[in-house]
Amino acid sequence: MPPGVKNLYANIPDKIPEEIFEDILRSDKFRIERIISKGHKSPEGFWYDQDENEFVLLLRGEAKLGFEDGSIADLKEGDYLVIPAHLKHRVESTSEETETIWLAIFY
Amino acid sequence: MPPGVKNLYANIPDKIPEEIFEDILRSDKFRIERIISKGHKSPEGFWYDQDENEFVLLLRGEAKLGFEDGSIADLKEGDYLVIPAHLKHRVESTSEETETIWLAIFY
Repeated sequence: MPPGVKNLYANIPDKIPEEIFEDILRSDKFRIERIISKGHKSPEGFWYDQDENEFVLLLRGEAKLGFEDGSIADLKEGDYLVIPAHLKHRVESTSEETETIWLAIFY
Repeated sequence: MPPGVKNLYANIPDKIPEEIFEDILRSDKFRIERIISKGHKSPEGFWYDQDENEFVLLLRGEAKLGFEDGSIADLKEGDYLVIPAHLKHRVESTSEETETIWLAIFY
């Protein structure tokens, strides 16, 4: 039997009241998550301050990430960046019109 | 300064005589490659037999992977699979019409 094939755009619910975080792969070296957002953003004054580095790729949709120095990364399909551990960041906005699908690798 | 943003669909040459393999990220735990194919396939009788596990995601295009048991994975956008180390596999075909863009994580 060959390896099972899955699809990152499958199983997206019609309604997404809360952001959806799902493990795609876990190894002892890193984990890959799929994140689905639709109009979600970080609460006022909230900052992610993570112990792990994060490689994040925007697969579909649109989003803006904010950083502590006030800069904004305006992300479209195919954009990716590395957020080093403890670099404070937040989700300023995600598209209200369409699902934003992220692939995130934490390591 | 925020982290630099790059795009996986940028810098795709007009002509792709050979498949293009580029490092997107290297850590001591894994490496991420972008692979661009256009009509490429593995030579007759060739099998990949890798020392590392590979998580592979087809971002754009179409491709077929073959496995030693004769099974074929017919991949479309968003499809992903894990190919364990030493599971012999080959690229049976990639689209001639459009670039096939892969994200591969070796670990």
